[in-house]
Amino acid sequence: MKFTIRKDALDGALQTVFKAVSTRTTIPILSGIKIDAGASGIVLTGSDTDITIQYFIPPEDKEGTVASVDAPGSVVLPAKFFVDVVRKLPSDTVELEREGNFQTRIRSGSSEIMLVGLDPDEYPALPALEEERVFSINALLLKSMIRQTVFAVSTNESTPILTGVLWTLKNGRLKFTATDRHRLSSAEAAVEASADLSIDQLVVSGKTLGELSKIIPDDGMTAGIVASESLILFKLDNVLFYSRILDGTYPDTSKIIPQTYKTEFVAGTREFTDAIERAYLLSREEKTNIVRLVTLGSNQIEISSSLSELGKVTERLETKRLEGEELKIAFNSRYMLDALKVIDSENIQIGFTGMMSPIIVRPEGEDRMLHLILPYRTSN
Amino acid sequence: MKFTIRKDALDGALQTVFKAVSTRTTIPILSGIKIDAGASGIVLTGSDTDITIQYFIPPEDKEGTVASVDAPGSVVLPAKFFVDVVRKLPSDTVELEREGNFQTRIRSGSSEIMLVGLDPDEYPALPALEEERVFSINALLLKSMIRQTVFAVSTNESTPILTGVLWTLKNGRLKFTATDRHRLSSAEAAVEASADLSIDQLVVSGKTLGELSKIIPDDGMTAGIVASESLILFKLDNVLFYSRILDGTYPDTSKIIPQTYKTEFVAGTREFTDAIERAYLLSREEKTNIVRLVTLGSNQIEISSSLSELGKVTERLETKRLEGEELKIAFNSRYMLDALKVIDSENIQIGFTGMMSPIIVRPEGEDRMLHLILPYRTSN
Repeated sequence: MKFTIRKDALDGALQTVFKAVSTRTTIPILSGIKIDAGASGIVLTGSDTDITIQYFIPPEDKEGTVASVDAPGSVVLPAKFFVDVVRKLPSDTVELEREGNFQTRIRSGSSEIMLVGLDPDEYPALPALEEERVFSINALLLKSMIRQTVFAVSTNESTPILTGVLWTLKNGRLKFTATDRHRLSSAEAAVEASADLSIDQLVVSGKTLGELSKIIPDDGMTAGIVASESLILFKLDNVLFYSRILDGTYPDTSKIIPQTYKTEFVAGTREFTDAIERAYLLSREEKTNIVRLVTLGSNQIEISSSLSELGKVTERLETKRLEGEELKIAFNSRYMLDALKVIDSENIQIGFTGMMSPIIVRPEGEDRMLHLILPYRTSN
Repeated sequence: MKFTIRKDALDGALQTVFKAVSTRTTIPILSGIKIDAGASGIVLTGSDTDITIQYFIPPEDKEGTVASVDAPGSVVLPAKFFVDVVRKLPSDTVELEREGNFQTRIRSGSSEIMLVGLDPDEYPALPALEEERVFSINALLLKSMIRQTVFAVSTNESTPILTGVLWTLKNGRLKFTATDRHRLSSAEAAVEASADLSIDQLVVSGKTLGELSKIIPDDGMTAGIVASESLILFKLDNVLFYSRILDGTYPDTSKIIPQTYKTEFVAGTREFTDAIERAYLLSREEKTNIVRLVTLGSNQIEISSSLSELGKVTERLETKRLEGEELKIAFNSRYMLDALKVIDSENIQIGFTGMMSPIIVRPEGEDRMLHLILPYRTSN
């Protein structure tokens, strides 16, 4: 194996595949990044067995030559050191040459680096995927759906299925659902899929979706998605991102979402968020982050929190519209802030069906996304 | 106590005095910030007993009214919550009013916050300082001297005196020295002082100087300095910064600095730093961070590091000038990078007096600062 490559291209590709490499792996070969150089380009692969990322570097791009391969071949190089040193190389081009016993020589300007490599044949092969369930979605829309939901997954490993986001697809609409039993977030969007494609139990780890989100560029490309029984593959231009699907049955959450409200208001997202944030500052001293909300007369609400050692925060807020029964409710302000943070619209709409029933938070007039927060039972 | 104050002024002052407040104090009153409101302005005080910061907010500044005091008085408010909530208050002005039992009401826009306050009479009084040893220095120059030296203090609490920076003053020149026994950094500058003022054993904690550095603005003001037996006071416009002086005798370091070199070279700071950084990436896998430097013929040097499991980095560097005996030396590359990071000049000058003698690193042609690194004994 011998090739010359533009440093920026190698650096960018390494940053991406390195996201799949675990620094604490117990499988030595997976602490490396696999390099395959051939006439059609260079392929880099990183994996931690849960996630595998493959990056294809073409011989040329619109700026000219990217890589020229003198001798095809493969090697596995220690990931962390390789990634860090490439970023700091002195010249704009880098030459890699595999020598005896997988040793690889890296040359750039006046730097010469010999790396102890590993046998590429020992690197796990990529799983074969039957291309049965295939659809595609605007990648930025996918990124947005991840942002809208992923924060609500459970971090409790005792219920592994809830650490993932449930994907369902029906009539060309993809829906994400995430819940940790205390709150639930969902988002949906249209995808390009054959009319008869239906998916109802596909759960992808929240951590994986977070990593995927990081490598989705902001240029409006389309993401191709292939789902098999145990794996899901995301195709993004030069990147293939494989992830395992979580085992287990996701609970049915459809029944906990109220369809009508007894009390409902619309408020400015910024003003409501600021008021909750100030109340949160006191509430965060206790794990439950309890904040109280009561409706007052004439379109006003009051948000408050108190802590005997510190004091009390009281916020009055003028809503844009307040309808229905009088209400007194308590909830975890951290959950409310998490939901508010991903709402970009000017106004929010919050619905209640009683002090012990779920609170529903949405962007005003928007039904493609929803955040549900269970209230707290409090004595006063 | 009752006053109205501009939010930005209160926020800025709180951020500054909060740097002196320890969140893990065992003295409850010190987890608070003391507020004294009087006709001449508002004074905020934060302290962890080692450091005390006092901020004076005048009734007016060049933009107009800052604070107007309706009733003078004092109170101590819980620091962390107070600082966080003021930053998030909705209006540009804030009203503070102390009520019964030190409870304090904060009003801003539609927010109302009641804080449990503490008795200001229980707050420790500021020590009286005999103004004997007094001098002044451009505050930015002071900040630069701190940056040049403070990274070299010891983090080992078993030799507390070495966790500080030694200040000496003679003939109107102030000198800082910091060492952790493996390396030493020093910097000096002219100060305004009476001709006969001499200081020879004044050691200020590195941590304290780091905090002081953070509150020095970039506007070229003068810092007044008052040193007593046990305390040092920095006066910066509206801020008084008090710190305890470390007890103990600082070791005499004058003899370990070589006056002549057997080998010396001048190199581009950027190129030399980059080469050391690449070698560091391999060396950091072991605690000693060992990198080797050898002189080659015709003005060249070679920098290298190796690790049997990973590989070897070899860097060739063209110096601007290389004089003296052939040299082979090994050193801790982390120490070298720490020193290089605070050198802003285009070229560096490095002097050696043998493979077991201290290495001296300076900006080229600059003798007001110096970094010394002890070499490593290595077998090959």
